[in-house]
Amino acid sequence: MLQKSGVTESLARFIVAMQWDDIPSPVRHQARRSLMNFFAVALAGCRTGPIEIALRSLAEFSDRKQATVVGRAERLDALSAAFLNAASANVHDYCDTHLRTVIHPTAPVAPAVLALAELRKLSGADLLLAFILGNEVQARIGLAISPSHYNRGWHITSTCGVFGAAAGAGKLATLDERQMVWALGNAATQAAGLCECLGTPAKSLSVGNAARNGLWSALLAEKGFDGPPEPLAGVQGFYHALAETPDLSAVTEGLGESWEIMATSYKPYPCGFVIHPVLDCVLDWRRDHPTAEVTRVVVRGNPLLAVRTDRPDISTGRESQVSVQHAVAAALVTGNAGLDQFTDACVRDTRVLALRGKVEVERDDAFPTIAAAVEIATADGTVHKLSQAAARGSDVNPMSDHDLEQKLRTAAAGWDPRYDATPLIAAIWALDASKDVVALAKLAVPR
Amino acid sequence: MLQKSGVTESLARFIVAMQWDDIPSPVRHQARRSLMNFFAVALAGCRTGPIEIALRSLAEFSDRKQATVVGRAERLDALSAAFLNAASANVHDYCDTHLRTVIHPTAPVAPAVLALAELRKLSGADLLLAFILGNEVQARIGLAISPSHYNRGWHITSTCGVFGAAAGAGKLATLDERQMVWALGNAATQAAGLCECLGTPAKSLSVGNAARNGLWSALLAEKGFDGPPEPLAGVQGFYHALAETPDLSAVTEGLGESWEIMATSYKPYPCGFVIHPVLDCVLDWRRDHPTAEVTRVVVRGNPLLAVRTDRPDISTGRESQVSVQHAVAAALVTGNAGLDQFTDACVRDTRVLALRGKVEVERDDAFPTIAAAVEIATADGTVHKLSQAAARGSDVNPMSDHDLEQKLRTAAAGWDPRYDATPLIAAIWALDASKDVVALAKLAVPR
Repeated sequence: MLQKSGVTESLARFIVAMQWDDIPSPVRHQARRSLMNFFAVALAGCRTGPIEIALRSLAEFSDRKQATVVGRAERLDALSAAFLNAASANVHDYCDTHLRTVIHPTAPVAPAVLALAELRKLSGADLLLAFILGNEVQARIGLAISPSHYNRGWHITSTCGVFGAAAGAGKLATLDERQMVWALGNAATQAAGLCECLGTPAKSLSVGNAARNGLWSALLAEKGFDGPPEPLAGVQGFYHALAETPDLSAVTEGLGESWEIMATSYKPYPCGFVIHPVLDCVLDWRRDHPTAEVTRVVVRGNPLLAVRTDRPDISTGRESQVSVQHAVAAALVTGNAGLDQFTDACVRDTRVLALRGKVEVERDDAFPTIAAAVEIATADGTVHKLSQAAARGSDVNPMSDHDLEQKLRTAAAGWDPRYDATPLIAAIWALDASKDVVALAKLAVPR
Repeated sequence: MLQKSGVTESLARFIVAMQWDDIPSPVRHQARRSLMNFFAVALAGCRTGPIEIALRSLAEFSDRKQATVVGRAERLDALSAAFLNAASANVHDYCDTHLRTVIHPTAPVAPAVLALAELRKLSGADLLLAFILGNEVQARIGLAISPSHYNRGWHITSTCGVFGAAAGAGKLATLDERQMVWALGNAATQAAGLCECLGTPAKSLSVGNAARNGLWSALLAEKGFDGPPEPLAGVQGFYHALAETPDLSAVTEGLGESWEIMATSYKPYPCGFVIHPVLDCVLDWRRDHPTAEVTRVVVRGNPLLAVRTDRPDISTGRESQVSVQHAVAAALVTGNAGLDQFTDACVRDTRVLALRGKVEVERDDAFPTIAAAVEIATADGTVHKLSQAAARGSDVNPMSDHDLEQKLRTAAAGWDPRYDATPLIAAIWALDASKDVVALAKLAVPR
């Protein structure tokens, strides 16, 4: 059988070879930041409808209590916990993004390695190393086929996430190179997920499966469940079926020298990222003008802002995440742009509704997607001109460590006002030195 | 969002509307034949390496004992049982085939409906109806994209099987039309499986998942886990991502009037079907000439026979399934062409090895794939000329009910020589009248 170069073997060799000491300090820190964001979004998502249903259903099929479900008292078997934590983290579209692939990288990988590390009582450094490697593998597999793969309708977080989860779990299970190729093959034949499901609970299925099936791929490989030698680039393999003309050099070039996790963006607001620079302007202005009566708002931005988010008429919280009119109106009325501002209740709020009709959108090719300008007219006749060149949370204006801590605190408070998030935050920053991940997991559930 | 015609709704309406009384008698009988073949191949496969590993692994994550694993004393949760029975049925490539799509239709569907029917103590007629509808749905979804989908590298039994399992389980769960669309959407976003994995244990993952995930798709929909309105034909849906120019009329035209299960082929021999007419000739001749010394064999058939199976040099049982030289040699040495003839041991048998070198393959465009001619030269100088116009098990020369019973008896005997398959066979034929599928399931496990 004709084979392309051994791209799967190259990845396997990389995953097996890399050790904690090989990971540069900024990469380790970024991994901790990604986990901070992960716990924030999983705490925010863990009581939503799709998660409640999936949890009830999975509990009918297993009563093992092997692993933590973030933010919940219930414990589940490790596979189901991986599923649920991934689905929770992604359900609000509030998780992190690798912009070049639009993969949400942490949702599939962190839950897989967390469940296995908890089951086997592994150390914090083990967890971080596995997480970093899984993140790297999925990003590189996705880079080779971006943007065509996503444009075809594939939910790339799911289709590539399963490899990341397999790689991370395989690293924790200390698979050898041959077993790691098997794990990646087991992942390849489980790669699934369609963008058609975005905006519905069905989306959570493929994201949860990416974590669950990736973890299982590694555990099966550990037991000798073997597969083809080149599942990625083989003539009937992943790239042939799911992609057009992959650039395989993107998978392997500079492995271990550059780290894709450094390009991770975190979202300060749970809505479409093209709205973010607009919100930066509006929230800053509202802070300085808490009582001003707004009569008209004109937002100007990259054409994508209008294409994706010019939606003055909406009826659900889900739709509000992609309505710039709603985001602006809700931010002006409440002074905030958190999860509460993108709910059905906020959409129905008559004050917000009234303001939505006063927001206009203008396209300007000169703006990158991370920039925007806003003009706010007030009842006193003043027009306030505001602008943001690089949205908070974008790669050139990243959220600070403190911002990420606040994101977690806010999410935790929404989940349980009595919950003190400080020990969890401290445990995440101190994870390198932790002997046992179980301690971390315990801090992420109600007492 | 732009939508094609509501093909998913059409399928959902069909599944929900059809009742047992609507199923013609020959279709009911073919369904029982498919189940006969299913129990045969699942009994044959249930102790192979991949199944042992998957069973051990799944048992670590659940100790619920909800459903039968065919041929095994272990009971598992319903999702895991569906996985394992599907994998068992398909592991030997000995299961049934819908030739126009090359879907192996029963492996994904029967285990899903069996597990749910057992869990909820449903009747034999419920089971058969759900099985027939699941079979129909997956075949039609596959027909719309055959042969390009399979040629692209998709393991169509897995990618379409998940819909069949969802449809069948959804019928058993008495989903309404809206829920059935959700079930098919949940299935669409879990559709996966690569032909690159054929010939390795990794193949079993996507086949098992088709049953398990299809079943779960329906159970989630039952609990209100919703999805997009047109997961099949939506602009980012299944057909857009996994197919080129689907013929959607193939999905819906004549639904409920013609039945794809009638086009099911069953395999008398556990090897590539292009070898089958050759084996018909060789086995018939050997029966009449049990002691003749063979000096040379020339087989003539459709070019696909040579392309796929002209492999005189092989070293494993797995490879022997696609070696016409081995199949002929083993049949001549043993007088048989069952599972024992396609093992590592038989490949190493020196008598078989010697004969393999005496078998030649000739191409003849005039032959369809189900026909072959064989010339056997013996030590006395005679050349015996044999031919088969339509292989046993092909749609125009189907295996008889008795043949299928014998296939099950042989498989059961290989699994446990003391096992009497007669009660299981009787229960399958009498399934329409069974009040509770649990009785059937009990007959398929060791005492």
